[in-house]
Amino acid sequence: MHREFPWLHPLLTCIIIAAVAFSLFHFGNIKRLVVGRPIRSRELNKPHMKLVWLIALPVLAADLYSSVAYGPEAGISELAHLGTSTKWMIIPITGSTVILLIFLITSYIMGVIAYPSGGGAYAIAKDNFKKPIVSLVAASALLVDYVLTVAVSVSSGIQTMASSYQFLAGHETLISILCVFMILLINLRGVSESAKVFAYPTFIFMGCMILLIVAGLIDELHYGFVQRVTPPFGTVPQGLTAMLLLRAFSSACSSLTGLETISNAVPVFREGKNGAIKAYITLGIITGVTLLGFAYHLYVKGISVNPHNTMLSQLAGLYFGHGLVYQVIIIFTFIVLILAANSTFTGFPQLAALVARDRFLPRALALRGDRLGYSNGMVVLAALAALLIEIFHAQTNALIPLYAIGVFVAFTVAQFGLTKRWFRIKGRLWQLKASVNAFGALVTALVAVIFAVTKFTGGAWIVLIVLPIVIFCAMQVRKHYEEVADELRIDLQTVHPQTHRILSVVLVSEIHRIVVDTISFAQSSSQEVIALFIGFDDESIERMEERWQEWGSPCRLVTVKSEYRSLLYPLSKFLRRLETREGGKPDHIQLLIAQFVPKKWWHHILHNQSSFLIRAWMLRHKDVVVTTVPYHLHR
Amino acid sequence: MHREFPWLHPLLTCIIIAAVAFSLFHFGNIKRLVVGRPIRSRELNKPHMKLVWLIALPVLAADLYSSVAYGPEAGISELAHLGTSTKWMIIPITGSTVILLIFLITSYIMGVIAYPSGGGAYAIAKDNFKKPIVSLVAASALLVDYVLTVAVSVSSGIQTMASSYQFLAGHETLISILCVFMILLINLRGVSESAKVFAYPTFIFMGCMILLIVAGLIDELHYGFVQRVTPPFGTVPQGLTAMLLLRAFSSACSSLTGLETISNAVPVFREGKNGAIKAYITLGIITGVTLLGFAYHLYVKGISVNPHNTMLSQLAGLYFGHGLVYQVIIIFTFIVLILAANSTFTGFPQLAALVARDRFLPRALALRGDRLGYSNGMVVLAALAALLIEIFHAQTNALIPLYAIGVFVAFTVAQFGLTKRWFRIKGRLWQLKASVNAFGALVTALVAVIFAVTKFTGGAWIVLIVLPIVIFCAMQVRKHYEEVADELRIDLQTVHPQTHRILSVVLVSEIHRIVVDTISFAQSSSQEVIALFIGFDDESIERMEERWQEWGSPCRLVTVKSEYRSLLYPLSKFLRRLETREGGKPDHIQLLIAQFVPKKWWHHILHNQSSFLIRAWMLRHKDVVVTTVPYHLHR
Repeated sequence: MHREFPWLHPLLTCIIIAAVAFSLFHFGNIKRLVVGRPIRSRELNKPHMKLVWLIALPVLAADLYSSVAYGPEAGISELAHLGTSTKWMIIPITGSTVILLIFLITSYIMGVIAYPSGGGAYAIAKDNFKKPIVSLVAASALLVDYVLTVAVSVSSGIQTMASSYQFLAGHETLISILCVFMILLINLRGVSESAKVFAYPTFIFMGCMILLIVAGLIDELHYGFVQRVTPPFGTVPQGLTAMLLLRAFSSACSSLTGLETISNAVPVFREGKNGAIKAYITLGIITGVTLLGFAYHLYVKGISVNPHNTMLSQLAGLYFGHGLVYQVIIIFTFIVLILAANSTFTGFPQLAALVARDRFLPRALALRGDRLGYSNGMVVLAALAALLIEIFHAQTNALIPLYAIGVFVAFTVAQFGLTKRWFRIKGRLWQLKASVNAFGALVTALVAVIFAVTKFTGGAWIVLIVLPIVIFCAMQVRKHYEEVADELRIDLQTVHPQTHRILSVVLVSEIHRIVVDTISFAQSSSQEVIALFIGFDDESIERMEERWQEWGSPCRLVTVKSEYRSLLYPLSKFLRRLETREGGKPDHIQLLIAQFVPKKWWHHILHNQSSFLIRAWMLRHKDVVVTTVPYHLHR
Repeated sequence: MHREFPWLHPLLTCIIIAAVAFSLFHFGNIKRLVVGRPIRSRELNKPHMKLVWLIALPVLAADLYSSVAYGPEAGISELAHLGTSTKWMIIPITGSTVILLIFLITSYIMGVIAYPSGGGAYAIAKDNFKKPIVSLVAASALLVDYVLTVAVSVSSGIQTMASSYQFLAGHETLISILCVFMILLINLRGVSESAKVFAYPTFIFMGCMILLIVAGLIDELHYGFVQRVTPPFGTVPQGLTAMLLLRAFSSACSSLTGLETISNAVPVFREGKNGAIKAYITLGIITGVTLLGFAYHLYVKGISVNPHNTMLSQLAGLYFGHGLVYQVIIIFTFIVLILAANSTFTGFPQLAALVARDRFLPRALALRGDRLGYSNGMVVLAALAALLIEIFHAQTNALIPLYAIGVFVAFTVAQFGLTKRWFRIKGRLWQLKASVNAFGALVTALVAVIFAVTKFTGGAWIVLIVLPIVIFCAMQVRKHYEEVADELRIDLQTVHPQTHRILSVVLVSEIHRIVVDTISFAQSSSQEVIALFIGFDDESIERMEERWQEWGSPCRLVTVKSEYRSLLYPLSKFLRRLETREGGKPDHIQLLIAQFVPKKWWHHILHNQSSFLIRAWMLRHKDVVVTTVPYHLHR
């Protein structure tokens, strides 16, 4: 298919995007069908729209938990070229990741307690740093990373799926983009519904991983904790450098992305911040246990890195064979990878709305849609992710190096912010809290630097260029909004509406029913009316002048000859003459345009659409009021 | 290139179309650069804008003359499977084509004398048949055929070019579409300029063909008129049926398409109808001589049909070897094939304008553009031809069967029309004239029927379906225009403008400088003003009401709560309430919308664009006058 019709793929992409946009924003009925009925604003605070923490957990955790499938493997892969003597190091590497996880969860819980209205790193930074640029660094790092999360998760899910199911191969990009738009549609339906759809697969995947850990324990109780295949422990392999070790650690840390989703979405929890804390603790325990157990079993079974068969797949094959349980584990790994993108559809729009409310992003991102979600933010996220997938042809390897820097930058800013906060407000045990956060800040800063250094040439430089650009644009946006607000502000006591002198110009092409209507309106609404006829030749001008006299000259008629057969330039010239005329200069010039409204849409192409052009041009370039008097054709 | 980037080709196509459209219609400067300065209407009739017949001839003849290169070959190809004993039949087949050519040119000259203002078949049919459907048949047959001419000529030119120059292979569609748009651009510059560009290659090609004929004559004077390779003359090959002969004849007749271009474009000639007649006679002689000489030399040299080497190329190779002269002949064949499309860019828009003036096509097709050409018609032609090329992947074989039926249908209608005319107006020698045209009509009708029958399954059925659809649409268009004209017509003596009562509704979102402006305008222009505030929650409504009182309530404020965060529906509901209120029902409801006009275009995305949506929706669905009061931001 792909080879025979090379235009099929970009064409389909265009059609999908256009169809989604068009149907959602133009056809009320289709929109209702796909997105569901509109929801009243007051339902936002009703408990049934919010989530019990046990449902919110899988929804918001898919991003973090899905990465246990590849985190340990990503770490040990960096050392694989040193030989089998490095195999044992999967335990200390994963262990240090889990320690970092515990630190991060602790400090995020402190963040939730301190800022229960959500917003995570951005809210923390905003509250604790005077300069808006610090919070903007956190926000834009997270926003960029959210987009990458969608692109990476969906691409990697589809990529692995395609390596198992051959008929998908070659269409990864198209399928990935379709996936993104399906997730978008489900999310446009609203937070609550999408949660119910997505909670179960994540639960099943968690169950599968726990089952795997337990199966491993049973196996080890049966055959011993040191088996024949278990590699020797503790030997330092030749050629191991600090740089390599750091790189392995930073790669393993990519399994910690997605941790911030819960802290950004605290208002989603029905139980408020307590629900979020419960979710954090539960998620931390499950993730930690899974990571450690998984890494330990990998060590005991002495499993090697194999680019064509993931370690998870190898281990599951050893314990369960390649029957039903194995298939379920593999398929749900794929599903949860794709669902990881879904949690981002909650996180990104909420963060964007927070930032937009502070006027750093276009106002439209802060408006809730029909179904109470921030639909504009969701559409922007889907479009950017689809663009990334298209550019990188859905290849995870190319996207991964761009990923995770943003998260660790945001982590660092947030932890420094919390440290500052404890110093400021003090309170019980503040020294302990401050030192926990300060240490966390140093560690995450270190991880961010390690990431940037070790992956710089692999693509990390793109992020390091994009981030300052995003921040600069955000500052410009804020500046523009502030300038406009200053310009528009008035003193209610002194500035009041006044009566103005209005001069109306009516564009006439011939004398018919619509012109009667329009001139009637003009004469009723203004002090002076001029009918303007723009003719292309002398005969038409003469004929118009005769007809006008025959009609009894209801108002002054000005005729202009347009030698270049254009309406815009003579009209513009005429208006300039009115604006600069001496004596009876009006306060407002009103341009009246009669507009045909045909009954059938296709009749539009039969009527000259110059009025659209004229209106757009005049509003943009002239200080004239443009009034459209519609005439609804009966036939 | 094509295989690595499958999206490149459709992408480029889109970019080209968009860029051309955008630059031509939006950027005055680029438009000036590409299309040239606008030309005053009165220059249309100045002699320097018209063409001397010797220049007009190649411009208008490329379509017809280019087909001598393939006409005889197309005819004899149909008989090639019967063996070498059919070779001599190229002479009678081409001869009968030339006889048909003489008949057609004679009757077309009569057409030019009778209708010197141009319009060809359409004008003739319109004048002689009462029912508009007859002239519509001629017009739509020609219009469809013009589009096919562009597609076929450009595709076949590029296809042959690609078989000589390997690096072009695989990109025929893209290059063909690029060609169409280049021809469009040159034509948008205007009739006169494009003529000067295109006249010389056609002259050179004519020179080449004459040179070939002369070279053949010299060869035959030297080596004898019957040579060793000359096949026997006059044997009737086995298996020859009347159907086969007819098919061969009709295929050879495809070289007669393009004959009508001159008669449609009589006003282009500086000498008027005399110029056109001179051009017709000259063209007829050159074409007839070329066809007969070419066919005779082919017979003498006993050249066979070879799908990989055209007969023209074989003959040229025999006479001149493969040196410079051969290369010039081949390259100019290609160029003239592509230029054949150019004459269509004169014919199609002129015919479309004639038909549009009779209100059978959208009015916009009858408007002359900046450079006095009918630019809309040219753009439509280019777009349709590009679409055909894209659909048929620039494959001439697939397009040819659709081609030439239209022309012969139009020929038939025109000749019947002329016959009727001679019967009506009589005059000197009218019986002779009438019988010439009547005979011509029968012959062309026969050719049209042969074409439709022999090529029906090959694609002619598409044309036989498209034609009635085009005719039906044209009738509907005319009906719509007439109904609208009836609806709008007024009696100048009795219907006059009246004074109306206007109620203005001002949409306010907060109180600032723009609202002051808009309310001032509303109060100055209408009897009653209502300020409408649509809030999404109770707090914002309360705050607005307080601020309004603080401001001294300059007019009545109505607040509406929009539970679904939509502006359109509450506004629409409010307007319906005003329309149906008892007592002081206004004649007009005016909706005033304040419109930000930012200084920089990208600032648009920072401001809510709901006013655009509201305006479009209101005009379409409600009988309200919509007034936009612009506020030009200083920053």
